[in-house]
Amino acid sequence: MKPFLATTAVGLMAATLAGSALAGALSPEEQIETRQAGYTFMGWNMGKIKASLQGDYDADQVKAAANAIAAIANSGMGALYGPGTDKDVGDVKTRVKPELFENMQDVGKLAGDFKTAADNLAEAAAGGDAGAVKTAFGDLGQACKACHKKYRADD
Amino acid sequence: MKPFLATTAVGLMAATLAGSALAGALSPEEQIETRQAGYTFMGWNMGKIKASLQGDYDADQVKAAANAIAAIANSGMGALYGPGTDKDVGDVKTRVKPELFENMQDVGKLAGDFKTAADNLAEAAAGGDAGAVKTAFGDLGQACKACHKKYRADD
Repeated sequence: MKPFLATTAVGLMAATLAGSALAGALSPEEQIETRQAGYTFMGWNMGKIKASLQGDYDADQVKAAANAIAAIANSGMGALYGPGTDKDVGDVKTRVKPELFENMQDVGKLAGDFKTAADNLAEAAAGGDAGAVKTAFGDLGQACKACHKKYRADD
Repeated sequence: MKPFLATTAVGLMAATLAGSALAGALSPEEQIETRQAGYTFMGWNMGKIKASLQGDYDADQVKAAANAIAAIANSGMGALYGPGTDKDVGDVKTRVKPELFENMQDVGKLAGDFKTAADNLAEAAAGGDAGAVKTAFGDLGQACKACHKKYRADD
């Protein structure tokens, strides 16, 4: 039996490794870093839109920024909240509250609102009307805050 | 004169601060962190597309991932290579070679090729044909490498 068991074990391990590779699986650290990268990059683009609304409106820049936010929002970031990402991992810190992982239905609703708001902003930006962008930008900010308030540690 | 000078100095400082805020200006550290966030997030999405091409093709996931890459590529990342971002800033490390900042015309061409390749990938992904995605994905990988080879320190 030994060879069979050994073969099976190796086979299982190979299958698991292949499965991880095929799924593009990230370690918990990588998941935390990648979701933070997404938020950082969205934050930069939010800042550009805010600056445009407060100064000279740059329609092309706003459109590009809103597209980046919407595409990131719709990229499936939920996959970056896997097991083991509910707390700091070594030097990789996270501000997420453990409560997020216990309220997935609520989080799913907030995430849906966020994607809708991001899509609305991209649509408004494509239209080029600064007033519509301002409204959609405010709505997106509220959608961000709704989740931060409940599930980010320092909000 | 003192009150006038003082007022002028305060006025200038206020104008400078407002100017920075309006431009959404980031410190060199923030520029480095934000551009790295963009590359990290694109890298995650490249990984998902690669996994889909190697395993069961998930057309929706590939489309979302390609959209994220294209939108990030077209978000104006050139603004994140400002003065002072050509070397490490404190704890914020960068792998960029100083040569990048001395060859802006070449960098502009490479960046243009990268955006074109990212747009082509998004278009192929929208079409849903895995073969077309594979070709466009390979082309985008080459466009990434072309810049890394010349301007990233460890390539």
